[in-house]
Amino acid sequence: MNEIEKSSRRSFIGKTVALSSALALTSFAFKPWDQDDSIEEGLYMIGPRKGYTPLIGTLVSMLENMTTQVKQTIQNLTIEELDHQFDENANTIGALILHITSSEKFHQIGTLENRPLNEEELKFWYAARNLSDPSSKTIKGNKIEYYLQIMDEVRKDSLAGLKEKDDTWLLSLDETISTPETPINKFWRWFHACEHMSNHNGQIKFLKSRLHLNKKE
Amino acid sequence: MNEIEKSSRRSFIGKTVALSSALALTSFAFKPWDQDDSIEEGLYMIGPRKGYTPLIGTLVSMLENMTTQVKQTIQNLTIEELDHQFDENANTIGALILHITSSEKFHQIGTLENRPLNEEELKFWYAARNLSDPSSKTIKGNKIEYYLQIMDEVRKDSLAGLKEKDDTWLLSLDETISTPETPINKFWRWFHACEHMSNHNGQIKFLKSRLHLNKKE
Repeated sequence: MNEIEKSSRRSFIGKTVALSSALALTSFAFKPWDQDDSIEEGLYMIGPRKGYTPLIGTLVSMLENMTTQVKQTIQNLTIEELDHQFDENANTIGALILHITSSEKFHQIGTLENRPLNEEELKFWYAARNLSDPSSKTIKGNKIEYYLQIMDEVRKDSLAGLKEKDDTWLLSLDETISTPETPINKFWRWFHACEHMSNHNGQIKFLKSRLHLNKKE
Repeated sequence: MNEIEKSSRRSFIGKTVALSSALALTSFAFKPWDQDDSIEEGLYMIGPRKGYTPLIGTLVSMLENMTTQVKQTIQNLTIEELDHQFDENANTIGALILHITSSEKFHQIGTLENRPLNEEELKFWYAARNLSDPSSKTIKGNKIEYYLQIMDEVRKDSLAGLKEKDDTWLLSLDETISTPETPINKFWRWFHACEHMSNHNGQIKFLKSRLHLNKKE
């Protein structure tokens, strides 16, 4: 676990880190994207999106592209495949799917509401957020539709929240996980939630390609 | 392999795809970032960078953050660990490192120079770019410093080239891999090169954590 993940975990369990007041906040403005109709939108057109400020829209285009790639990997998996454990140290594909979604929820609440997950939220998310915890073994028996629906619900909340923010906010320091030595902004948390999907999508593809070699039959 | 990767592969082997002239190019401008000193830069401060236009600087901040994560994973691996093959279908960690670097070089040349890799470039990159090709098995016997140096050299060329471009260019269609059905812009190619690092970093971490279980000793 690197320093940032340790810091995130500390934040996740409710503690916050003192932030040096010497750190300057970013402050500037782009023109509202709504005024520019020249951009063509599409799944493989990364960039600003109508209804969002330019950098937030660009983030949204990345999140949507990444989620599409993950769904291409997992969409046809059976319950048995989602629950299969490759080896004693491996996470199931189902647990990995809920894990990447828990990460988006964690960073969504952390940035949009500037707080860690509350007790009620933890009841649902703790196991997926902490795959090294024995409770993660309880993530099983779910159809792919279950995971896809949760992914969509979390993303819906992400987009609704991001629509209300602007680029100055996205670039501003995240005081819950920044340290005096390591300033971290909200954009990093969202970028991390995005590339974290790719990180585990790579593992899911690795495990998926070996399902037939490991099924107990 | 999804449609985009197929398309990229076609481009990679030298063919280009006809592009519908009906596709509109993006056209707008941000203020030069050099004029704004208010942003704080840092490895976990994703956003514009001095010397680059805002979206290109944001891309650069993501590439640098991602490369740092990959280096944290691989920096202490031995030649034996880099060359170890987990199972008959697995790529070695060394091959995966050169693969993600080959992807950055491919998209760097494809976008900055609007061409596929030439014959001389292919002599070096083909094996790493095509891990399913038997030639990829020749990627072995190299110290970690070898891979890190190539990563740094390719990134140096990426940054030098991106410094000469602007956001209108980054958002513009990539005519070498776009199709009438699927418009793809240059920003997608760079975002993909970035998240592709995370995709394989996830696999490398999976393989690294199992090295001790699979060494032939």
